[in-house]
Amino acid sequence: MEIWRINLLDQSYSRQPVPVEWEHFGGRGLLARILLDEVPPTCEPLGPNARLIFAPGLLVGHRISSCDRLSIGGKSPLTGGIKEANAGGTTGHALTSLGIKALILENRLPQGWWILRIDPEGVHFDPADDLAGLGVYETGARLIERYGERIAASLIGPAGEMKLTGAGIQNFDQDGVPARIAARGGLGAVMGSKRLKAIVFQPKTGNQPALVDPAGFQAAQKAFTLALLAHPQTASFRDYGTAAVGSLANQYGAIPVRNFSAGSFDPMESISADTLRELLLARGGKSNPSHACMAGCAIRCSNVFGDSAGQEVVSPLEYETIGLMGSNLGIADLDMIAQLNRAVNDLGLDSIETGAALGVAADAGLWTFGDGERALALLAEIQAGTALGRVLGSGAAVTGRVFGIERVPVVKGQALSAYDPRTIKGTGVTYATSPQGADHTAGLTIRAKVDHLDPNGQIEVSRNAQINAAGYDSLGVCSFAGFGFAAAPEAIRDLLNARYGWQVATDILQALGRKTLLLEREFNRLAGFTAADDRLPEWMTREALPPKNAVFDVKPSDLDRLFDF
Amino acid sequence: MEIWRINLLDQSYSRQPVPVEWEHFGGRGLLARILLDEVPPTCEPLGPNARLIFAPGLLVGHRISSCDRLSIGGKSPLTGGIKEANAGGTTGHALTSLGIKALILENRLPQGWWILRIDPEGVHFDPADDLAGLGVYETGARLIERYGERIAASLIGPAGEMKLTGAGIQNFDQDGVPARIAARGGLGAVMGSKRLKAIVFQPKTGNQPALVDPAGFQAAQKAFTLALLAHPQTASFRDYGTAAVGSLANQYGAIPVRNFSAGSFDPMESISADTLRELLLARGGKSNPSHACMAGCAIRCSNVFGDSAGQEVVSPLEYETIGLMGSNLGIADLDMIAQLNRAVNDLGLDSIETGAALGVAADAGLWTFGDGERALALLAEIQAGTALGRVLGSGAAVTGRVFGIERVPVVKGQALSAYDPRTIKGTGVTYATSPQGADHTAGLTIRAKVDHLDPNGQIEVSRNAQINAAGYDSLGVCSFAGFGFAAAPEAIRDLLNARYGWQVATDILQALGRKTLLLEREFNRLAGFTAADDRLPEWMTREALPPKNAVFDVKPSDLDRLFDF
Repeated sequence: MEIWRINLLDQSYSRQPVPVEWEHFGGRGLLARILLDEVPPTCEPLGPNARLIFAPGLLVGHRISSCDRLSIGGKSPLTGGIKEANAGGTTGHALTSLGIKALILENRLPQGWWILRIDPEGVHFDPADDLAGLGVYETGARLIERYGERIAASLIGPAGEMKLTGAGIQNFDQDGVPARIAARGGLGAVMGSKRLKAIVFQPKTGNQPALVDPAGFQAAQKAFTLALLAHPQTASFRDYGTAAVGSLANQYGAIPVRNFSAGSFDPMESISADTLRELLLARGGKSNPSHACMAGCAIRCSNVFGDSAGQEVVSPLEYETIGLMGSNLGIADLDMIAQLNRAVNDLGLDSIETGAALGVAADAGLWTFGDGERALALLAEIQAGTALGRVLGSGAAVTGRVFGIERVPVVKGQALSAYDPRTIKGTGVTYATSPQGADHTAGLTIRAKVDHLDPNGQIEVSRNAQINAAGYDSLGVCSFAGFGFAAAPEAIRDLLNARYGWQVATDILQALGRKTLLLEREFNRLAGFTAADDRLPEWMTREALPPKNAVFDVKPSDLDRLFDF
Repeated sequence: MEIWRINLLDQSYSRQPVPVEWEHFGGRGLLARILLDEVPPTCEPLGPNARLIFAPGLLVGHRISSCDRLSIGGKSPLTGGIKEANAGGTTGHALTSLGIKALILENRLPQGWWILRIDPEGVHFDPADDLAGLGVYETGARLIERYGERIAASLIGPAGEMKLTGAGIQNFDQDGVPARIAARGGLGAVMGSKRLKAIVFQPKTGNQPALVDPAGFQAAQKAFTLALLAHPQTASFRDYGTAAVGSLANQYGAIPVRNFSAGSFDPMESISADTLRELLLARGGKSNPSHACMAGCAIRCSNVFGDSAGQEVVSPLEYETIGLMGSNLGIADLDMIAQLNRAVNDLGLDSIETGAALGVAADAGLWTFGDGERALALLAEIQAGTALGRVLGSGAAVTGRVFGIERVPVVKGQALSAYDPRTIKGTGVTYATSPQGADHTAGLTIRAKVDHLDPNGQIEVSRNAQINAAGYDSLGVCSFAGFGFAAAPEAIRDLLNARYGWQVATDILQALGRKTLLLEREFNRLAGFTAADDRLPEWMTREALPPKNAVFDVKPSDLDRLFDF
């Protein structure tokens, strides 16, 4: 494996052996290490000193179920801090097939739009001015037309080109659809600032990273797969996808409703996992309640949402989007939510950030909760690049600032996911303290066996979840695969030792997680973050959330000890 | 003197003796003390825990020349840090006539728009829904119509009502024109968040604060006035106003041109102080090159800009506006600049912040530098409350963020004044390190006898200027009166001792300044500011400014020792 480093300004590049200090890092942890080593934490996130880095996790490349995930990182133009956003799909695997442990993009192309293309021979820059302004779906189709069906690709939509801070980076799934988005924190804007419309990966087929101990690897993989298949959550995710958590969140009074003004959604039944599954089964055609984003995944939590004529609308339709663009917008119609989802995807925007921005916009009187057609029209404003569209595409914090709205659900400038922190307080601790800004993937606690309304004890619950999440993100392991690894923790140790010839212990997941979090926190400290940034919005500490009438009341002094480990 | 404290939520109020710990503070220093004592530094600036405070300086109330200034303060919604903005006019004097050392507004009115009226009997709330949406000039006229010509008033325009973070708070000058704006940092938005359209002060005529030693006071006042009148700058300000500094800035290559992309303005002659004076003298009518904003001012640096028909367009037309809305926008026509100035004033916006935002907007392609009619049309968008207007009214940082522009001239989210820090490096140090965000009034160094291009030694120059500025702002003394006090420093000591019966020493100015700066910095520290916030924009360290081709190269480690005193 090598480090590929490309200077976009003069289009030069180098392939370097992995520095010893980086060897034991992968994915999210490697990003943190590289960013701390190479990027001035106070630099402009969209300026020439900012870097955009792609790093597959440590276990990527072997089609272990749900373990081929890619981490993309840089300094976030949304939060001003460190950012890792990860995605499934095929890009992570393609990077390892090319022997790339980390791809570091330095500087910026001076003008025009470009495709960066990487094959075993090296690095190529193809003009992409003809793709400028195109949506993600059309861009993906053109890339396949141009380079064939076997490519992997990371690409941006119009939002990234406009450097809107709600923009993410999409990746092909195994069907060649740019459906897997490294969504959060505005990394699409970073890619846009570098004038890259797409990065195309053309690995040699079947090229896998070498294994030090193939037999040991195979045994560990088998143990993990069996544990994963035996776990009840695996079947639940297969049948219902992430949507399954919606009813649980609603029951806890934690689903976002009309810009986080309530935690229970009366027409919940209309957007529940049961309803979604029944609808997709009944519709047939392209509709499919169980779909894998990457080869080898035994969970298949993804889905394909087809319309009544059997045509694909969007894939996947996830709980976070159902929460943020459904209940949070007062919309109880899965077809409308799927249309909104397709529209934000096509723009290359994070559906969480954009859903939150639209919620704030409704509080500002720009549209009426529940009016899906008007919400679609607002997304069209983003496509058109109007001032209003650019504000919304910049995310919830900017929307609140511009329109003078107080109820803005963000931490470190990044929108909350679809779990209200007043009723799932451990996740609130994660939102508040994660170096990533508010993000459920940084440490979701809704399945922890605790009283979620009790402000006490949540630090430990969140800390544990954050450490595990950072660990899995360093391995390239999907958090749902975590159900398997939790049942067979030695499998992680054995897989790493067999692949790399290391001698790591069973607590390697937590060790990686802890190290990663501390590196990220150090980057943020140097970027100017303090305890004042590790807080939920003040209004959430005073505005009680119906129907539980809870406020966020975890003590600030408790939040300040999360990283005491 | 008393502290008047008003709870806007229930319209209750109290009059309290001045706490011992607050006695020796006034104006800016008193704001810092009260904010630290009472306002959580992490609170939402437009939320219920934020306070808006009015405090005249320690020497206010006696019509000492140019010494009746008012400080207004709170947590800034623009910077997120502490904010003091001060203004001349008649409000400061009115507060002392009412015996008010500080007026503290707590909480918010729940709905509607209100006039808070204060007279010797107490506090009154008069409905102001009929004034909602009105510009500052019409609002001022209606207040005089309603309450008579002898009132003082602080008021906001539509921008403050919309809670736009570029909004300031206007104050009547001695002609009853709302011409004196506490402009910077978005305090107009804070007042708007409290649902106060205006605060009207109705003091008893002739009521002055008591003097412990009237004869001593009179002697010191005389010494100061003589020193002031003898200083050559006094005559320069009288004849040419603040515009006089324009040619100097241009000569240094430091005048902002087309969004800070150059430091020298080819048609400088068209907007110079000479041209302005000649024009105003030639036009007659309402035009007047020398006008006092407050009674008793011997400097009279203000002016009245009349049109060719003799009608008043705006008063005053200041250098900062000529720089930010003239050369910075590529506009070389004083009549157009005056129209733009009137329009921002009427909106209740800071002309520096708005000029900088328009400069960024031109770089974003929203209009063309030099096209004044189009700039006026953009200001009309603010009046209309469109998304574009709200973005511009939110200031330069938000405008840059929304439109993806890199060349954004801000520090701590607040726009730079009309001195480019790459060529006046001491002022650059002030911009970078002032707890107030970028602001020339926090410590302008252009008149210091140093090589302004040399990065060395500027810390001391800026520190000295910042300490003096904070001292004068605590006294209520106009910085131009500082020319007099600099020649007769013992006059400050004698005036304070004679008024209050204190025993302060000659270095009281610096003592007040130092104490104020450290309190402000402590508030910011608790609000989450670090060394990372004490920096100029990164692009100013790499983009050389023609014609001097200078970058800002004062060492960060030097910036970090500014407060080592």
